[in-house]
Amino acid sequence: MKNVLIIGCGLIGSSILRSITDKKIAKKIFVYEKSKSNILKIKKLKLPCEITSDFKKIIPDLDLIIFCTPLGEYEKIILKINKYLLPKTIITDVGSSKEKSIKLIKKRLNKKISWTSSHPIAGSEVSGPEHGAKDLFLNKWCVLIKEKNTNKKHLEVLRKFWKKIGSRVVIMDSKKHDTIFSMTSHLPHLIAYNLVKTATDFEKKQRYELIKFSAGGLRDFSRIAASNEIMWRDIFFNNQINISKAIDLFIKNLRSFKKDIQSKNNKSIIKKLVNTKKVRKKIIKLKQDIDKPDFGRG
Amino acid sequence: MKNVLIIGCGLIGSSILRSITDKKIAKKIFVYEKSKSNILKIKKLKLPCEITSDFKKIIPDLDLIIFCTPLGEYEKIILKINKYLLPKTIITDVGSSKEKSIKLIKKRLNKKISWTSSHPIAGSEVSGPEHGAKDLFLNKWCVLIKEKNTNKKHLEVLRKFWKKIGSRVVIMDSKKHDTIFSMTSHLPHLIAYNLVKTATDFEKKQRYELIKFSAGGLRDFSRIAASNEIMWRDIFFNNQINISKAIDLFIKNLRSFKKDIQSKNNKSIIKKLVNTKKVRKKIIKLKQDIDKPDFGRG
Repeated sequence: MKNVLIIGCGLIGSSILRSITDKKIAKKIFVYEKSKSNILKIKKLKLPCEITSDFKKIIPDLDLIIFCTPLGEYEKIILKINKYLLPKTIITDVGSSKEKSIKLIKKRLNKKISWTSSHPIAGSEVSGPEHGAKDLFLNKWCVLIKEKNTNKKHLEVLRKFWKKIGSRVVIMDSKKHDTIFSMTSHLPHLIAYNLVKTATDFEKKQRYELIKFSAGGLRDFSRIAASNEIMWRDIFFNNQINISKAIDLFIKNLRSFKKDIQSKNNKSIIKKLVNTKKVRKKIIKLKQDIDKPDFGRG
Repeated sequence: MKNVLIIGCGLIGSSILRSITDKKIAKKIFVYEKSKSNILKIKKLKLPCEITSDFKKIIPDLDLIIFCTPLGEYEKIILKINKYLLPKTIITDVGSSKEKSIKLIKKRLNKKISWTSSHPIAGSEVSGPEHGAKDLFLNKWCVLIKEKNTNKKHLEVLRKFWKKIGSRVVIMDSKKHDTIFSMTSHLPHLIAYNLVKTATDFEKKQRYELIKFSAGGLRDFSRIAASNEIMWRDIFFNNQINISKAIDLFIKNLRSFKKDIQSKNNKSIIKKLVNTKKVRKKIIKLKQDIDKPDFGRG
């Protein structure tokens, strides 16, 4: 590739930038970034890119555009770049929710242009270009979305792109994507946020400090619940139907747990607690985590 | 101290053993352990102790007995040792739930004997003496329980004991203890178990694999949900009333979250997501976690 444009250069965008540079995937990287604070950081970090908003000038010569902003920003930016886009330009995004954003893209994007959606399963509770890393995607899954009208040529170019960056690529449709990630990512984040909120409400009610004793479990959730609020609001709003179903199933199971505890149902509760251990083993076997015990960090 | 008896030598018991040895707190450590597999491990690890069940012989010369078994084991063992206990013997335990176990202890323990309860806030998802460490309690909280009938002399000895081991000691009554830890430890564990169960149920229903995409959040919960099932069943059963209330508050908040998502209530959801970030900062300030981002382990 010759020229790549990264739109939104936070944690993910700047990691892609570093990775492209490291693997020599493109000759030149342009960055469009609306946050002044991020622009200052990018300059201070001397990330090898040209920061620009001159879409008219750069778009005709681009091979690849990657949207790395929160989902809620897509529409505005599409309307800005639409008239300069060419059918040959490959466009992708790294958003965590797909069905709704693909519908919006279809509605707003110039009809002759293809958009091929990606979702690299990588990230952290921190945001901003200072936290990016060239190896962020190494051995991580990257989901590529394939629908009826997907441009096969673009899909293949993106498959190779993510592989070069170090990802393991898997292809599925947007419906399956949103169902899976409502359960493996969106619900866990929502639950973490909700647990920290519940503890805060409880602390106020009880009028004595409890956060200082959070090492017994709450601490680990609070890390996840410190993730970027704009990004997560957009994910929750976009994947609302699947997440609502996941919440309902979660509450149903929680009620059953409560019943087991209140009735001291030994058999039922041990079954629950043992089965989750099996899932843990599966997760380690599938290399989604390591088998090293955690006694608290630092 | 001259002689200490550790009853139950798993993760916590063996960590206390190692710590007592390291700090030269006692001359001799006896261990009572019912699990044959743990006994083999203790011997293989050459932990400096004498494994025994001859209570009649050793108890008269003991300065300190520490119960490190799951809560459900206390009663049986108290009935075994009751007749050999002397008023001078200091007895404590490290259980994670207090009100109910203290009631049971009062009922079963020989009337002339004092029991002073401890709860070191340390542990991991792994069990067994092979995972113990001498520094497990270093800079961690240890709660000592003080009630009307608490033996002040024993409480003072235990305060010094935990301080020597490296803990920061805090004293409170059992009611306050159980309320705090229902929220900071028991509910988070229950929620983690419940989330993994919900994901498993969902995977079965959908008939496609989703555990392999667990790096997006579920992974972190699965680690907590791999904790010892006997220990956690006993905690859930013992602190049932507080945990049930915590579950109710959690469900109430989760419903409100769902409502915000369904109605796209931007103001309300951003408030929730931003406030939890503040709690995270407090947790780091209180040194309950470190300020290092987590990108997944290994």
